Amino acid sequence: MKVAKTIKSVRNLVKAARSKGKKIGFVPTMGALHIGHISLIEAAAKKCDFVVVSIFVNPTQFGPGEDFEKYPRPLKADLEICRKAGVDVVFTPATAQMYPQENLTWVNVEKLTEQLCGQFRPGHFSGVTTVCAKLFNIVAPDIAFFGQKDAQQAIVIKRMVADFNMPLKIVVCPTVRQADGLAVSSRNQYLTESQKKNAPLIYKSLQKCQKLIADGVADSKTIINQMRKILQQAPSIKIEYISIVDADTLQELKKITGKVLTAVAVKIGSTRLIDNILVDVNKR
Amino acid sequence: MKVAKTIKSVRNLVKAARSKGKKIGFVPTMGALHIGHISLIEAAAKKCDFVVVSIFVNPTQFGPGEDFEKYPRPLKADLEICRKAGVDVVFTPATAQMYPQENLTWVNVEKLTEQLCGQFRPGHFSGVTTVCAKLFNIVAPDIAFFGQKDAQQAIVIKRMVADFNMPLKIVVCPTVRQADGLAVSSRNQYLTESQKKNAPLIYKSLQKCQKLIADGVADSKTIINQMRKILQQAPSIKIEYISIVDADTLQELKKITGKVLTAVAVKIGSTRLIDNILVDVNKR
Repeated sequence: MKVAKTIKSVRNLVKAARSKGKKIGFVPTMGALHIGHISLIEAAAKKCDFVVVSIFVNPTQFGPGEDFEKYPRPLKADLEICRKAGVDVVFTPATAQMYPQENLTWVNVEKLTEQLCGQFRPGHFSGVTTVCAKLFNIVAPDIAFFGQKDAQQAIVIKRMVADFNMPLKIVVCPTVRQADGLAVSSRNQYLTESQKKNAPLIYKSLQKCQKLIADGVADSKTIINQMRKILQQAPSIKIEYISIVDADTLQELKKITGKVLTAVAVKIGSTRLIDNILVDVNKR
Repeated sequence: MKVAKTIKSVRNLVKAARSKGKKIGFVPTMGALHIGHISLIEAAAKKCDFVVVSIFVNPTQFGPGEDFEKYPRPLKADLEICRKAGVDVVFTPATAQMYPQENLTWVNVEKLTEQLCGQFRPGHFSGVTTVCAKLFNIVAPDIAFFGQKDAQQAIVIKRMVADFNMPLKIVVCPTVRQADGLAVSSRNQYLTESQKKNAPLIYKSLQKCQKLIADGVADSKTIINQMRKILQQAPSIKIEYISIVDADTLQELKKITGKVLTAVAVKIGSTRLIDNILVDVNKR
């Protein structure tokens, strides 16, 4: 496994692999790797011949007061995880490598970034799409892999790739969960022991949603109220949003129909956690 | 010469050329080709082995009330010009090929788009950078060629390429002028005979600026006043702006220093014309 710190070196490594006819898979991450990331790496290894992982805590996607400073950066452990997972190249640029001068150029995706997390994290998706555009241009992969846990991010990036005719495919992999149902996230490690006991209520509320839809409940408000009751079992959980939206347009649905995305964001203490489920009502 | 109407076909043609080790040069245009475009094609042929020209009147860079509808589209003559100039592929996509669905994703370049034409054409540069990002992703050239006549456009696109780590070079070619000094432009054909007689005053005003700087005049206001006097010789000329700015940052300069861009935009009747000169005071 090679570790590339510069744009030039990662480009050269990918170029050499491509010249051998290899298909390039790319997993962009902010490090603090966990089994969710490993599942993305495994998916990349399955579909591609050469796997590049980037580890870069991107400052432009954090808002003021968010956790950019305290975001975990266990580089040594991350590299070990990559090595064991069979990664070919890990790209670990410094901030000055990615942003050598004031960044003036931004990607903005309209509409799809206005709901859900976009309402609570102004500028976040602009930072995400901008750094992904940069990384896609640097790594030039055939396929990039993202997790369903960040559902809105995946939808926004897919739209950017389509609108900009970027020459790669986006593959979205299923959310990986702990035995207790909590979606695996680098931010879970911020939780105290007692907060960890309450956090699985997030997925419980989503399972409730799934069951209600399966039972034929079609009114979003009714479902959201039931979900809220579950989350309110733990007073430490502060609900940011519970939204039932069209899975393509992210527009709020009053009546359950078609492909439905139910997404939840909460704060437990100062830790912000998100999760979601996709239900295709037609395929039920 | 091949004419490609679809993204897929132009990609295949470029891919085949690249697989033969050819260097790809790209000249994006809106058609209505003239000797200015030909100079870009010639520059591309000189530096590259395979030249792609795109002809696409991009709707997203025209504002309401601008000349999108009446913009000239002499496709047959354009193709003949390309053939004679030795172009390898002309990419002539329909609007539905470039924008198959509502475009939600935009490139925005901050600061550099706020001055000069940016003040008078809101959204224009966002349309330009967005379509260039799309075209660069479609054609995947090694070098793209732009004209110095659209000075701000060239600076904005260069910045986009740098900020987004796009894997291509931008080459800016000198403005091509008629014998009377008027910068060649597709929009010149809108001018009536009498307007054509007045239009060379634009370049005359820029030559005056050049001379004043050469004579040691360092006060921008003094220079702009002299330029305005020249343009006011023709009452049909309405000045939109006369700006003296830093050639890198596009910030207004009160005192002439360093690399200076003097840019003029006027309306003659309903025709909007722009022109500029670059003066490097250090190299004078």
